[in-house]
Amino acid sequence: MTISHRRDRLRRRLHAANLDAMLVTDLVNVRYLSGFTGSNAALLVLADHDVPVLATDGRYVTQAGAQSPDAELVIERACGPHLAARAAAGGVGRLGYESHVVTVDGFAQLQKAADGIEFVRAAGTVEALREVKDAGEIALLRLACEAADAALADLVAAGGLRAGRTEKEVARDLESRMLDHGADGVSFETIVAAGTNSAIPHHRPTDAVLAAGDFVKIDFGALVAGYHSDMTRTFALAPVAQWQRDVYDLVATAQRAGREALAPGVSLSAVDGASRQVIVDAGYGENFGHGLGHGVGLQIHEAPGISASSAGTLLAGSAVTVEPGVYLPGYGGVRIEDTLVVGGDHTPEPELLTRFPKELAVLS
Amino acid sequence: MTISHRRDRLRRRLHAANLDAMLVTDLVNVRYLSGFTGSNAALLVLADHDVPVLATDGRYVTQAGAQSPDAELVIERACGPHLAARAAAGGVGRLGYESHVVTVDGFAQLQKAADGIEFVRAAGTVEALREVKDAGEIALLRLACEAADAALADLVAAGGLRAGRTEKEVARDLESRMLDHGADGVSFETIVAAGTNSAIPHHRPTDAVLAAGDFVKIDFGALVAGYHSDMTRTFALAPVAQWQRDVYDLVATAQRAGREALAPGVSLSAVDGASRQVIVDAGYGENFGHGLGHGVGLQIHEAPGISASSAGTLLAGSAVTVEPGVYLPGYGGVRIEDTLVVGGDHTPEPELLTRFPKELAVLS
Repeated sequence: MTISHRRDRLRRRLHAANLDAMLVTDLVNVRYLSGFTGSNAALLVLADHDVPVLATDGRYVTQAGAQSPDAELVIERACGPHLAARAAAGGVGRLGYESHVVTVDGFAQLQKAADGIEFVRAAGTVEALREVKDAGEIALLRLACEAADAALADLVAAGGLRAGRTEKEVARDLESRMLDHGADGVSFETIVAAGTNSAIPHHRPTDAVLAAGDFVKIDFGALVAGYHSDMTRTFALAPVAQWQRDVYDLVATAQRAGREALAPGVSLSAVDGASRQVIVDAGYGENFGHGLGHGVGLQIHEAPGISASSAGTLLAGSAVTVEPGVYLPGYGGVRIEDTLVVGGDHTPEPELLTRFPKELAVLS
Repeated sequence: MTISHRRDRLRRRLHAANLDAMLVTDLVNVRYLSGFTGSNAALLVLADHDVPVLATDGRYVTQAGAQSPDAELVIERACGPHLAARAAAGGVGRLGYESHVVTVDGFAQLQKAADGIEFVRAAGTVEALREVKDAGEIALLRLACEAADAALADLVAAGGLRAGRTEKEVARDLESRMLDHGADGVSFETIVAAGTNSAIPHHRPTDAVLAAGDFVKIDFGALVAGYHSDMTRTFALAPVAQWQRDVYDLVATAQRAGREALAPGVSLSAVDGASRQVIVDAGYGENFGHGLGHGVGLQIHEAPGISASSAGTLLAGSAVTVEPGVYLPGYGGVRIEDTLVVGGDHTPEPELLTRFPKELAVLS
C-alpha cells in the first residue's frame, strides 16, 4: 500500500462526484496524499492523471523532492491560488476544494486566480479516505502505541507513580520516557489527574500532590512519524476504598463491552450504546458525560466520532479509541481508554494497539 | 491596563469603520479580548456597549466565569452562529467578522443563522490591536524571556553544551530547564543545530553529535501564561577558527545595528535594512535569506513582520525580535536573536527582554 493508492482512492471519489480535480489545502491532507510535511503547501490531484502537482515555497525544495518523489513540484509561495490557476489553465472545469478549511479571504484569492473555473465544495472528502488506515499507517500507529506502553511501564517500574510527587512531575516524567522510547513528541498535553482532580474529564496537570487513597488518571499518547497514540489508565494509591474498586470495575466492564462491539458495519451509535448501557444500568449514566471514542491517526481526533449522536457505521480498518469514564465530583473518577484497529472480513477481531494491562493496579 | 481597555480600543475601530459590532472567532483574539482560553469560543463586541458576550460550550462553564467575569456568558456549542443570530436579533446592521479565519463553510453557517445582517470583512482588526502590548502583556513577556534566559544559563553552567552530546539531547535538556524555571511549555520546537547543520536556518534537532570546532546554534523560547519568548544564541566548541570569529562578529554587529534602529515611527523595511546592510557590505548578503524579525506575543509570529518588503512603521510598545543570521552551507552558520519592546516618547530606548550575553562563548 503506497501513497499513490491513496490518490487512486481519491480519484475514484472525484469521478463519482463528477469533479475534474481536487485542490487540497489542508496540510494534514496534503501530507496524507503526498508524504510532504512542510508548513506551506497545496496539492492538485487530477481525476484522470496519476501525477499530482505539489506546490510549496523555496524553503522546502530539497525536502519536497525527498518526501514526494512522484509528484510534480512547483515552487511558489501562494500555493493554493497558483494551483487553482494551473487547474484553470489545464482545462479543469469543476474543481473540488476544501470548503471546511479554506477561509473566506483565501477563497476570494482562489477565485481571483482561476477566473471561470467552477469551484465545488468538497469538505471532508480526504478525511473520509483517512478514516480507513492502510498497512503503513497501522504500522506507525503500532509503533506510537508501543512507545506509550513502554513509557508507562517504565514509569511504574521506576516508582514514578507515588504519593508525594506532583501531577506536573509525573506528566513530565512520562513524556520524557516516551521520547526515550522513540517518540518524536507527545500526541497531546499529558493529563495526570490525582484525587478529586480525577473527576475532571480533561484536567491539566497542576502542582497538586499525589496522596494515599487517590485515583491517578493518566491520559497520554506518543507521536511517531505523524501518527498519534491515545491511551488512558487509572491507578490507585493504597489504601483503596470499596467505592473505588466498584467504580473501577464498572468502567472496566463498560470498556470491555465497547471493545467487543467493535466490528465493521456496526452503527457508531450502537458501539457507544454497548458501553454506555453498562454504566447507565449501574446508575451512573449522568457521570459519563462524553462520547465513547474517536478516530485517531495523523490527528489525535479524526473521523469517526463514536457517540450517541454519531451517524454512520464503523469501517473495517479504521483506528479508534474506546474510552468510557465515570466521574464523581468531589471524590474522583476513572477512565480506561485503548486505541484499536477495527477488523475486517478475514480478521473480525479488532487489533488492540495499546497493550498496557487494564487490571486495577494499586501502588503505594 | 485591563482587558476592558483592549475592547475599548476595538470599539473605537468599530466606530471608525462604521460597524455596529464585531464577531471574534479566532481563539487567540478571543483570549486577548476576554481572557478566556477554552478551545471552543466566540466573542461578540458591540460598538456601543461595554459588556461583551462570550459563547462557549458546557465543558467550560466554570472556567469561562473565572477567566471572563465581566462578560455575559452564553453556553452554546455552535458559538459563532449563535452570536451572529444574537447580533441580528439585537438590531446589529453591519457586523464585522474575521474573514481571514472563518472558513467558507463556517461563513455559510453564520449567514444562515443571521439572515438579513450585513457581514463586513474585518480581517486583521484584532491582530492590529495586539501589535501594541499593554503593561500586563509586557510583564508576561518579561517572565517568559527570563525563564528562557535562566534555562540557557543553567544549561551552560551544568556543562550541558559539550562535544559528545546529540542535538536532541541538548534540546530536551534545555526544554526541561525552561519548565524548571516556571515556563508552562515551550514557545516552539527547540532548534539545536551543530556543525554544518547550523547553516540550515530552521533545523530540527537530530541525533547528530556535537563535536570540537562546531558552531552550535540554539533558537528557543518559553511560554508563560500564553506569551512567547524567542531567542537565538550561537556558541562555539573549541577550537574556534578565524572564519568563525569573523562571521560571529559580523552577525553581532548587524544584530546591534538592528536593535539600535528600533524606534517608534521608523519604517519596518528600514529596520531590516539597518541590520542587513552590515551583512551586505561585508559581502554576505546572499547568506542572509530571511527577514530580520517579527512581532511576538500570544503567538510566536505576529504583527509586525520586519523584512525588506514590510510596509508600515514600528509602533511604540510593540514586541519584536531582531535576528539576523549568516549561513554558509557546508561550513556552519550564526544567528543572534533578541526579543525587545519598542520604546515610546518618554522612553525612546527599546527594552531588551532576552538578556543572556551575546559575546561569543567558546565552550569545550
